Order: sequence, then structure tokens, then C-alpha cells
Amino acid sequence: MELLRVTYHLDVDEASAEARAEAMAREQTVEVPREVALRDPVVAREALGRVEKLEEDPEGGIRATLAYPVATTALDVAQFLNVVFGNSSLHDDVRCLDIDPPPSLLAALGGPCFGVPGLRRATGAVGRPLTCTAIKPMGLATPALAALAGTFARAGIDVVKDDHGLADQPWSPFRERVRACLGAVERAADETGHRTVYAPNLIGTPRRVLDALRYAEDAGVRAVLVSPMLIGLPFFSELCQRRASVPVLAHPAFGGALRFAPEALFGRLLRLLGADAVIFVSFGSRFRQSEQSCRRIADGLRCPWGHLLPSLPVPAGGVTLASAQKVVEAYGRDAMLLVGGDLQVDEGGVLERSRRFVEAVRDAAAGLP
Amino acid sequence: MELLRVTYHLDVDEASAEARAEAMAREQTVEVPREVALRDPVVAREALGRVEKLEEDPEGGIRATLAYPVATTALDVAQFLNVVFGNSSLHDDVRCLDIDPPPSLLAALGGPCFGVPGLRRATGAVGRPLTCTAIKPMGLATPALAALAGTFARAGIDVVKDDHGLADQPWSPFRERVRACLGAVERAADETGHRTVYAPNLIGTPRRVLDALRYAEDAGVRAVLVSPMLIGLPFFSELCQRRASVPVLAHPAFGGALRFAPEALFGRLLRLLGADAVIFVSFGSRFRQSEQSCRRIADGLRCPWGHLLPSLPVPAGGVTLASAQKVVEAYGRDAMLLVGGDLQVDEGGVLERSRRFVEAVRDAAAGLP
Repeated sequence: MELLRVTYHLDVDEASAEARAEAMAREQTVEVPREVALRDPVVAREALGRVEKLEEDPEGGIRATLAYPVATTALDVAQFLNVVFGNSSLHDDVRCLDIDPPPSLLAALGGPCFGVPGLRRATGAVGRPLTCTAIKPMGLATPALAALAGTFARAGIDVVKDDHGLADQPWSPFRERVRACLGAVERAADETGHRTVYAPNLIGTPRRVLDALRYAEDAGVRAVLVSPMLIGLPFFSELCQRRASVPVLAHPAFGGALRFAPEALFGRLLRLLGADAVIFVSFGSRFRQSEQSCRRIADGLRCPWGHLLPSLPVPAGGVTLASAQKVVEAYGRDAMLLVGGDLQVDEGGVLERSRRFVEAVRDAAAGLP
Repeated sequence: MELLRVTYHLDVDEASAEARAEAMAREQTVEVPREVALRDPVVAREALGRVEKLEEDPEGGIRATLAYPVATTALDVAQFLNVVFGNSSLHDDVRCLDIDPPPSLLAALGGPCFGVPGLRRATGAVGRPLTCTAIKPMGLATPALAALAGTFARAGIDVVKDDHGLADQPWSPFRERVRACLGAVERAADETGHRTVYAPNLIGTPRRVLDALRYAEDAGVRAVLVSPMLIGLPFFSELCQRRASVPVLAHPAFGGALRFAPEALFGRLLRLLGADAVIFVSFGSRFRQSEQSCRRIADGLRCPWGHLLPSLPVPAGGVTLASAQKVVEAYGRDAMLLVGGDLQVDEGGVLERSRRFVEAVRDAAAGLP
């Protein structure tokens, strides 16, 4: 069986390392209590992740290498990310250090289509590092940005990219900028013989990015810039593997997006983008989250906000039958309780436990003010 | 002028708060040295972010509210995220606390299409919290998962969702699972009169997610589950606003993806997904990054890895003319130097500084072993 190996830093002491790593191996794959995972032999053998190596990290804490059966990823890029770091990214004592996919996954994901040789071909730069700069600042009109691109090209810079913040703003609309900058670097090439590559910035939803890509490729661009963490990693993969016919430069923007406070990410941003219901890890679950922070998330999802409909808060992450009443009292009527593995701990009693869950919520709601 | 206000926690002392906040207001918009930003009156007035409020955070550090002209976002969802937390997410002393978009942006983004009222309509749950559970674990065959869905439905649970790790794995392919689970909850409804909503998990590239959505909607599902941070926030927005005709539940997986070590995210993952060149913040820039970590990123991008082409490392984030030689020595020939604002600090001398940049790289490369 092929295995996807992922190495994590765990901010725990040696005594608790094994239990913590075992819990993570479950969290990233089957996401049920151990006894439920072991009940079905196929689940236990073919789906459950396992702990492969635990060692002290010289910088403190533990380095744990977990091995996941590759079938858990369905050889799909988003599900691969999910297995690597989906739920565990929400534990603040875990850090993903390294990823080692087996051959089938490596083949499915594919890597660069052009890479170093393609960029050397596109720029003609041989045997030395390439040079690159950005046209900016945002707010300059297109002629000023194009003039900058021309200047950089005349100086012999290999790649002139849009600043990653140049989108389709009124000061310099995308299509106008692409045409003007391409013209500027081409005029410089006629002068100097050096063919600078101009890489416009593609940003937006998949629909807009693909539209911009088509326009840019038709206009003759020979590379493009995107911010993978902003446009989304699975779409980034689709863009590289199936859509772009020119090299793709990746910008790191949004690469540290975790430092969104949970209130901002779950309580505001997801509602703003359109989530009808937002699942978040609640206090009293297996994740560390304060009750106050959870209340703020729920408030953010339901409070009046312009014309926006309220989103339904869905506290989760290990809510149990036993804690259901407390959770109802904390979140009130406009909420959805999500109980997962706890309904399955008693193999023959799933219907009974599920009924008790439904009744517990009904009873607790009756007691609400 | 409409302003997008964003509040951040800055892990700095009071003495340095103002300078740090001012630098952030530039980082998130014009991304050039102050003197370059102030050179053009339109840039200074209409594009440059400004510091609106600084206050002590009761939990230590500073709370800074920055105001960005809404035009910087181009009313586009990805560029909005970029202005909110693009580059600044890479500074480890910053945390995004709150977002307050002006009416035009609120209207452009749109929020939930169904929200709480839509989910109450879909489930028939009135005046009490809703109940929800997940079918799992991954590894179970479709009949077992469908039987679970049926059991939960007979117990009267309102929403039964796929576990967020159920993708298109061999044990239970997506289409087969959707049909079987819908059938199971419908049979339960015939028995009990309670119409449980089954929400399948959509995961993958935009192409695959849209294909799965179409299939699920045609089959009659009345809600879907997605992980916005996994599929990408702009695509999530497109899905909610334009694609889905049923309520969308958001799962928090991957919501803490920052804790990817830079070596893993920039040095491995982006190459794996297909980046031909990867821009990352380098040592000697305005971001905190160790030289050792940067070397590991570059090594990860260029080392032999199955059949994968090497990606071109692009150290950036404030590399200057003065540091170019050191950067060339650190990264060697297969690299691209990205110098941004430093080429523009002398208004009349952009061509000259750009030429010196090109020459510095050429000269430094000649000295490489």
C-alpha cells in the first residue's frame, strides 16, 4: 500500500507524544473515536493513518512522521491538502514541516509544467540568476506603469511583473495595462535586443482569473503571476496543470492567513463571502477555543450587517450528547448542533443515541428564554 | 471616499506602534517606500492606506485600525482578501482581528443567499436549534454510510452531512454515495414524516467541485458542504453567489494553514502543485526569515523529486541593490532576484538603478563557483 508521509512539529512533551500523534493520525483520516475506527477491518487497514516515527525536535517538542494510505487522498489536490493539514491546522500546537507523497500522488499532482528550464527558455537567461522587478505602486495610471515596464526592460531586467496588488482597479484596468505593458517591453526589445518577459497579475474568482488568463495569452504574454494562497491552492493547481500555456509565477501573499482571529475568519469573512451555515470548533470540544471567542463567532454570524442574511452558526469539533444542553444554552435558537463520532460509540445504539441527541436539543430549547 | 476598515493586533510596544502601522498601511496597498508613494498625488490620496486608530490591547500589544480606500479592492473578492491580509499575513507579529467593509463592498461580496431563514425552510426546524451529524468514517463502503444516514434521519436529525474527508475515494465514490444517501433519507422520511437534509461534501479543483455540484443538485440534494479554506475563498464566494442553488455549509478545515513551515509551503507544496517560479520572503528583507530556512526553501524547489521539474526560487520581500550580491551568493545560478521599490527610490534614476541591478547580478554570477 502506497503511503503519504507527512512530518509535523508537535508542541508537546515526550510523555504525551505518542497519544497526541495517534489522535492526529485519526483526525486527519477517519475522524472518529479509536473504537469506531477499529470496528471495520477495511477502515482500520486501508483508511486509518498511523504513526511512523516520533523523535525529539532539537528545537524543543516532538517531530512526528505520520503515514496515510494514499487512497485517503482520492488522488485529488484538495483532499490531499485536507489529509495533510485539514483539521490539524486548527490545533495551535501543530505545525506541518514536510510532505512526502508516494509516486502515484506525485504523478497525479504533476508539479511545474515549465519550471527552471522553461523560464530560462522564455527569458534567454543562461548560466546566471535571473532578474525581476515589479511595476507599482497601485494608483498610478496605465501610461506611468507601462513607462516603468519599458524602463526596466531597457535596463535588461529579465522578468517585469505586475505588483501582486494590481488587479482591475479604476486607475489601471487589467486589459488596458496588459496591452500597454506588452507594447512597452516590445518597443524596448526592438531598441536593445533584450526580450523582457512581462508577467501580469491574475487575481479573482476562477471565472475572472480564467477570463484574464485567456485575454493575456491571446495578447501574447509569456508568463503570468498569481498568488496561490489567495486564489486557492486547488484552483492554482488546475491553472498550472490544465489552463495556463505559459509559466506561472507564485506570489506568497496570504501565506500566513492563519493569523486571522477565529472571530474574523469564521464569524465575519465566511458570512461575507456567502456561507449559509458556518461550522467552527467550539469550546467544550477537542479543540482549544474559549467560550467567549465562540460567542463572538456566533454573534458575528447572526448580527445585523447591512443587507446580509444571517448565517447559521454550527458549533462542532467534538460536541457530545452530554454537552448538548450546555451548547444549546450558549448559542440559543439560531444555531445548529453538530455531533459526530459520539453518536457512533455504541455500535448497536446509533439510532437510540441519535434520538437522544434530537430530544436533548428539543428539551434544552424549551428551556431557553 | 468609501473606506475598508480592518483591525489588527500588532505584537509591538507603544513606541514603535505608529511606525509599524504606517508601514502596514503601505504594505497592504502601494507596497513601495513612503517617498515613492507620496510622489504621485493620486497614489497618495486614492490608493495609499492610512492609520485610523491605535489603542493598547488589554491583552498586550496594540490594536490598530487601518483604513483602505475601497477602490484598492477593485470590488473583487480575491483582491479584497489581498488588501485585508495579503503580505501582512507573512509578518508573524500581526493578526487580523476584524473587517468592516463599506456598503459598496458589502453589496459586491453579497453574503449568504439562504442563511438562517433558508436553512430553517429547508429543514422545517422552527424555534429551536437545528441538529446535525456526519456520516463516517472514511473507509466504510457506500451501503454502510447510507445505512448510517438512514438511521440518523429516522432519529429526526435535521442535517446529515458527509464527513468533510469523504471525497471520491474507492471505498465510496461520490456519485454512488449521493444517490444512496438521498435514497436512505427519503425512505426514512416516508416512514417518519421528518425530511432530513443530506449535505454531500464537494471537494477538489473548481472543475471537479462544479461537476459534483451539478450532479448533486440534479439528484435532488437540498444543501451541500464545502471547506472554503481548502477549495479557496474566492472560489467559495463564486460557488455561493453564482453557482449553488441550495444552501452551502462551510467546514473549517485548513483554517489554520499558516502553521505550515515556510519550507513546506513554499519549498514543497507550491512546486508540487505546479508553480514554475516561487516568490518567497528572503532573509535580508523586511520580513523575518532565517537564512537557513531560505536555503531550505530554495533546495526544496530545485532538488531532484521524482519526475518533477525544478521550480525557480525567487527571493524577495525587500531585496535591494545593495544586497543583490549577497543574495546571488546565497542562492546560486538557478534563482531569480526580485528587487521592487528599491529601483524606484530615486525618481529620475530608475533606468540607471535598474541597469546597476542587472550588472550586479551578472558580476556576482561570474564569481560563483
